[in-house]
Amino acid sequence: MNYSSRLLENAVNELARLPGIGRKTALRLALHLLRQDTQQVEAFSQAILVMRNDIKRCRNCHNISDNDICDICANPKRDLSIICVVQDIRDVMAIENTGQYNGLYHVLGGIISPMDGIGPEDLTIESLVVKVNEGNTREVIFALPTTIEGDTTNYYLSKKLAGFSVVLSAIARGIAIGDDIEYADEITLGRSIVNRIPFSSKGGTAKS
Amino acid sequence: MNYSSRLLENAVNELARLPGIGRKTALRLALHLLRQDTQQVEAFSQAILVMRNDIKRCRNCHNISDNDICDICANPKRDLSIICVVQDIRDVMAIENTGQYNGLYHVLGGIISPMDGIGPEDLTIESLVVKVNEGNTREVIFALPTTIEGDTTNYYLSKKLAGFSVVLSAIARGIAIGDDIEYADEITLGRSIVNRIPFSSKGGTAKS
Repeated sequence: MNYSSRLLENAVNELARLPGIGRKTALRLALHLLRQDTQQVEAFSQAILVMRNDIKRCRNCHNISDNDICDICANPKRDLSIICVVQDIRDVMAIENTGQYNGLYHVLGGIISPMDGIGPEDLTIESLVVKVNEGNTREVIFALPTTIEGDTTNYYLSKKLAGFSVVLSAIARGIAIGDDIEYADEITLGRSIVNRIPFSSKGGTAKS
Repeated sequence: MNYSSRLLENAVNELARLPGIGRKTALRLALHLLRQDTQQVEAFSQAILVMRNDIKRCRNCHNISDNDICDICANPKRDLSIICVVQDIRDVMAIENTGQYNGLYHVLGGIISPMDGIGPEDLTIESLVVKVNEGNTREVIFALPTTIEGDTTNYYLSKKLAGFSVVLSAIARGIAIGDDIEYADEITLGRSIVNRIPFSSKGGTAKS
């Protein structure tokens, strides 16, 4: 491809490094940015640079934050006795969006995966143990992926936390609301039978 | 959506302004950039800013360029007597990629479109007339879209250039190489019959 300009080519190269952006899309984006006001492009470029340079990790839960302690950990209305362990900050956002959880989080920053060279020491497991050791925690909820790596991490964490008087739980897996049983995969359907919950006549199924 | 960080939210907002990028994709891109080295993100942000601030328009053909005169206009091997009129710099790239054209270009910067408030004075038509008036031009090729606006612009240009001794031509429209005739749309098929060209037994159809 002949770009007529090395500056354009550089910008296309950089944009094409983004995941899911090919060279054609990168060119379209570069030409779009070229048509914008200088101020608009400055704001764009600045927002990304400032985000990369100034964003912090919460000292408590390792969620991303603008301060040393994130808004969730700093919120006095949250239940400090429950910690939900997630792989990634995106999982925090997803659970927050449900509006159903009022405890704290702990972002592991990944899961144990020997294939990818990620061991327990690469994750924030020690700081979780320290936090639980402080004695304010009543329950730790595992919300990790249902993969071999996720199960391995769950198992490792449960061993690490075995000495403490905390309840360990995992988020429920089962048929999604509105899904047909006949089309569900066998593993999910099997789990949802094994992990069945008491039926309540008020509002369908609910934990007693 | 709760982003935990205003800096992340700003970056997502800016990325989501790009065409074809929704908020979910913008978040994915922002988190990807967050995981990159500071240097890498600086290079990204810098490449876009420098492109926007330093890119120039060729004084001769209005193509984008790093210099006052673009590489195509400055190339002594190009045929200076043919000018191909296109709407946009992307059309220059597309034609250059064919490797079939050795003349110059003239980038109009749009086409006449009263509906969008674009009149002849918003385009680089005057500078095309000035260029043709210099007397070095033998042929002007119109390579504008086959829309009402494209046809209007072709007509307007042909009127403007009527007084000069230049050949006016338009790129051939017809059934694409390899396309089946039965699936071609009627307008394209109709045009390709009206604008049929002499058949040469050497290498299929070719202009005699």
